[in-house]
Amino acid sequence: MIGLGRSLDRLQNALDLGAIDEAETDWSKAMAEADIVVLCGPVSTIAEQARQAWRNRRSDQILITDAGSTKAGIIRELEPEPHILSAFVGAHPIAGSARSGVSASQPDMFEGKVCVLTPTDQTPPDQLRKARSFWAGLGCKLVEMSPEDHDRALAQTSHLPHVLAAALARCVDMENHSLTAGAFRDMTRIAAADAELWRDIFLTNRESLDIALDRTIMDLLKFRELLMKESSEGLENWWTEARHRRSAYEQLVLQPSRPTVNLIPDSEIKHPE
Amino acid sequence: MIGLGRSLDRLQNALDLGAIDEAETDWSKAMAEADIVVLCGPVSTIAEQARQAWRNRRSDQILITDAGSTKAGIIRELEPEPHILSAFVGAHPIAGSARSGVSASQPDMFEGKVCVLTPTDQTPPDQLRKARSFWAGLGCKLVEMSPEDHDRALAQTSHLPHVLAAALARCVDMENHSLTAGAFRDMTRIAAADAELWRDIFLTNRESLDIALDRTIMDLLKFRELLMKESSEGLENWWTEARHRRSAYEQLVLQPSRPTVNLIPDSEIKHPE
Repeated sequence: MIGLGRSLDRLQNALDLGAIDEAETDWSKAMAEADIVVLCGPVSTIAEQARQAWRNRRSDQILITDAGSTKAGIIRELEPEPHILSAFVGAHPIAGSARSGVSASQPDMFEGKVCVLTPTDQTPPDQLRKARSFWAGLGCKLVEMSPEDHDRALAQTSHLPHVLAAALARCVDMENHSLTAGAFRDMTRIAAADAELWRDIFLTNRESLDIALDRTIMDLLKFRELLMKESSEGLENWWTEARHRRSAYEQLVLQPSRPTVNLIPDSEIKHPE
Repeated sequence: MIGLGRSLDRLQNALDLGAIDEAETDWSKAMAEADIVVLCGPVSTIAEQARQAWRNRRSDQILITDAGSTKAGIIRELEPEPHILSAFVGAHPIAGSARSGVSASQPDMFEGKVCVLTPTDQTPPDQLRKARSFWAGLGCKLVEMSPEDHDRALAQTSHLPHVLAAALARCVDMENHSLTAGAFRDMTRIAAADAELWRDIFLTNRESLDIALDRTIMDLLKFRELLMKESSEGLENWWTEARHRRSAYEQLVLQPSRPTVNLIPDSEIKHPE
């Protein structure tokens, strides 16, 4: 496991923590023996890093994968370069926390977590097999979707919650902080995440996020209308639908045998030895 | 501790759990020996229950307090009845969870939690002293505010988060539930709360909640504008302000020596023996 980065301090930290075996700041040296490259920068940097990885490859069989939170933009950027596009299998492990950097890493961080792979029509079956094997080897449950479907789903399930968490943090006066309860604490936790990282995620998923936000704003306006009309029944129905959906979520997701859409069965995965 | 309720089954449950010593379904019997009454129904029922408590009082010295989430509406309803208003000291212990009913009770539920008392100009000092002593005796840290200030603050710190949690639950398609992460789980937790209870809280705090919602919707529209303009700097600044506020919240609230606005010093409280 060779760590490639710009900062010697951070690489040393990764070495000390045992997260990597060797540290490099130079692409050609880092790539000299690599069979698989995992790009982990902010999502706006991933296409350019894929080009660097390809330029410095040991062999054309190299697998380039990533951990970026949006996928369609990367594919669009790589489309003019079909060789690189063929080497790239986008991945989004849905794992981690609001903390960033190697000090936030955990050995079992991916265990049992969903990882979405986003192959395209250009992805050779052999590269997809390698990507499946790599991410399954980290303990992930694999799901496959098109880059566009991934971005639409994650706009709802991840990017929208982040915007709402930040808006809530922004709209409560600080003098009232001592009158908050567990709900405010839990709902603003992710507002502590890195600004540069999330700016990039938002920008690279503008259209789907805009649709999710539009729906949410319309729903809040509907709530306000019911409130100002003093519609007791309307408010109760509005809330009951939310309660019903939260309950369906609990049934589906909090169960140990969590079913997932587009799950790749284990028989399709060649696990590493 | 005498439990007064409508349902014998629920009262039996409270007896079995040791939450009450005696059970009554009749106001006059329940009130025959009571010095203090704590009204715990949905907030829209509290003024009427205060009237019932007063009608069945053992003595004019009775203290009537409550645990409702909004306060100004109760006071407005009781204003034509100055005797009852004088016996009533509104209270809002900021404690509990999305679960309701006696089975969700915990012996240490109030320990170290803020309880807001909302005395008015009509509150006799002796009643306020009794209310302080009662709620401090349960382990609460006492804060005093006017009913109107309480409702404005809680619209931001509690009612707004509940609306946002429910809106998020409503705006994520159920087929995408398996692609959610911890943020969605934590942010929709309170959407499981009781519909009737929250309908009442919203209706009795319409104006302050509307102001909080208006501010949040305007903020989301601002975010959307920055997003569609692809304003990298604007989005980063928008996020950084949220991050700064969440960090201020952590400093202030997650510290063991949590400072609170309008905190009543311990020297002002006569603790029960």
